[in-house]
Amino acid sequence: MMQWVRFKTDGQEQFGLIEGDQIVVYEGDLFDNPQPTDMRYPLNAARLLPPCRPSKIIALWNNFHQLAAKLEVAEPAEPLYLLKAVSSIAAPGAEISRPGSYSGRVVYEGELGIVIGRRISDVSETEAASAIFGYTCVNDVTAGDIISRDKTFAQWARAKSFDGFCPFGPAIATGLDTDGLRVRTELNGAERQDYPLDDMIFPPARLVSLLSQDMTLLPGDLICCGTSLGVGSMKEPVNTVSVTIEGIGTLTNRFLQ
Amino acid sequence: MMQWVRFKTDGQEQFGLIEGDQIVVYEGDLFDNPQPTDMRYPLNAARLLPPCRPSKIIALWNNFHQLAAKLEVAEPAEPLYLLKAVSSIAAPGAEISRPGSYSGRVVYEGELGIVIGRRISDVSETEAASAIFGYTCVNDVTAGDIISRDKTFAQWARAKSFDGFCPFGPAIATGLDTDGLRVRTELNGAERQDYPLDDMIFPPARLVSLLSQDMTLLPGDLICCGTSLGVGSMKEPVNTVSVTIEGIGTLTNRFLQ
Repeated sequence: MMQWVRFKTDGQEQFGLIEGDQIVVYEGDLFDNPQPTDMRYPLNAARLLPPCRPSKIIALWNNFHQLAAKLEVAEPAEPLYLLKAVSSIAAPGAEISRPGSYSGRVVYEGELGIVIGRRISDVSETEAASAIFGYTCVNDVTAGDIISRDKTFAQWARAKSFDGFCPFGPAIATGLDTDGLRVRTELNGAERQDYPLDDMIFPPARLVSLLSQDMTLLPGDLICCGTSLGVGSMKEPVNTVSVTIEGIGTLTNRFLQ
Repeated sequence: MMQWVRFKTDGQEQFGLIEGDQIVVYEGDLFDNPQPTDMRYPLNAARLLPPCRPSKIIALWNNFHQLAAKLEVAEPAEPLYLLKAVSSIAAPGAEISRPGSYSGRVVYEGELGIVIGRRISDVSETEAASAIFGYTCVNDVTAGDIISRDKTFAQWARAKSFDGFCPFGPAIATGLDTDGLRVRTELNGAERQDYPLDDMIFPPARLVSLLSQDMTLLPGDLICCGTSLGVGSMKEPVNTVSVTIEGIGTLTNRFLQ
């Protein structure tokens, strides 16, 4: 298993693999045979960036059996999703501010993120599995009160696309088997989510295969797999949210009112 | 008024201004003081590309008084929108194929497209007006039967994000006043839409100002302003759809079953 990070140093964007407390700097294209250099950079001094630059962000709704049961909604026959604007991307450690135009609930949603590794269109589950580059942690931040406030049109994209509402990272883990793993979310130090990824209605390879029938997926595209039990509001003046998945690491961001 | 196009010649992507039956080739950044070159290229020999590369595509629902009245839906208090995947972009003249996974209605929607010219966030209507680079024609192609087939979640993004479902162009017209202009859509030579842009519920500057309160808009971002009366299915084996707005030109694409 390897963990890829992207970071900024001396105004320059770089990427590399975590090796102990260092980053081994690579060059070239993360998704096309990148090459290691002799450079090392101390991990704790690196200003991390979002680990890749998605051309699109697909976010699932209602993709966990436990959450569907709790909300008493039918389990979907096909993946139900919206798109988040890529302008909502935020780095690990970034501070996220309440949008000036919105005074309602802002909700954290700890999720598994799938990062696509190569261009695919209409592929089988087997091909989809091999096109998954790796996995990351996502906080699918949501302006909860916007979604249903217009009775004629559910405003999913808007509620989830404010600037900063898509932090992901800290790394993209490759060679990771998500079976048996859990998503753990802490809000201000208190555990709020601890749910198993095995509970997914559309698990990664199936999901990627089905999505690839809808649209071409490109290297770096991010699929937020949906959340499960324990979602909640960020009500304090400063809210620290950490999303942890074993093998990937912990994504920590602060949401400020 | 000027019309910017992007095109491919000898495998190279270029852009320029239409001047009579020629394209005056420019170099640099379309949105940051591009400079003319001595090169000319015959317009009718140019293989046009989508005139810019949006980082996101915002598509309005229910943005015309006449359509709201016909559908008997309340006029929205705020812009209602979804995001289309950027992988759905298609060039002027491109052939669009029915998705293999979908056998239902596929609908044309002739629309005005706004192209953003500079990075803006939370700006006034006056600033928004000055941040509009220009206007283009869009066919907001939609897999109509997908939207409401799941009773728990309206699948707007999916219905409008299949590959090829966002042709736009042929040009971006700058210095265009949309007051008094109309959108005319022809299906296989028969006029199907002819509606006034003055009928917009959220006209361009107001719309861009409001959207900029939700998310940062970037140069090249495309806002599809929504459609009005006359939307319909493309039922023939080959369907030629032309969307015309005076001053921009005619966007023509074929949809094949």
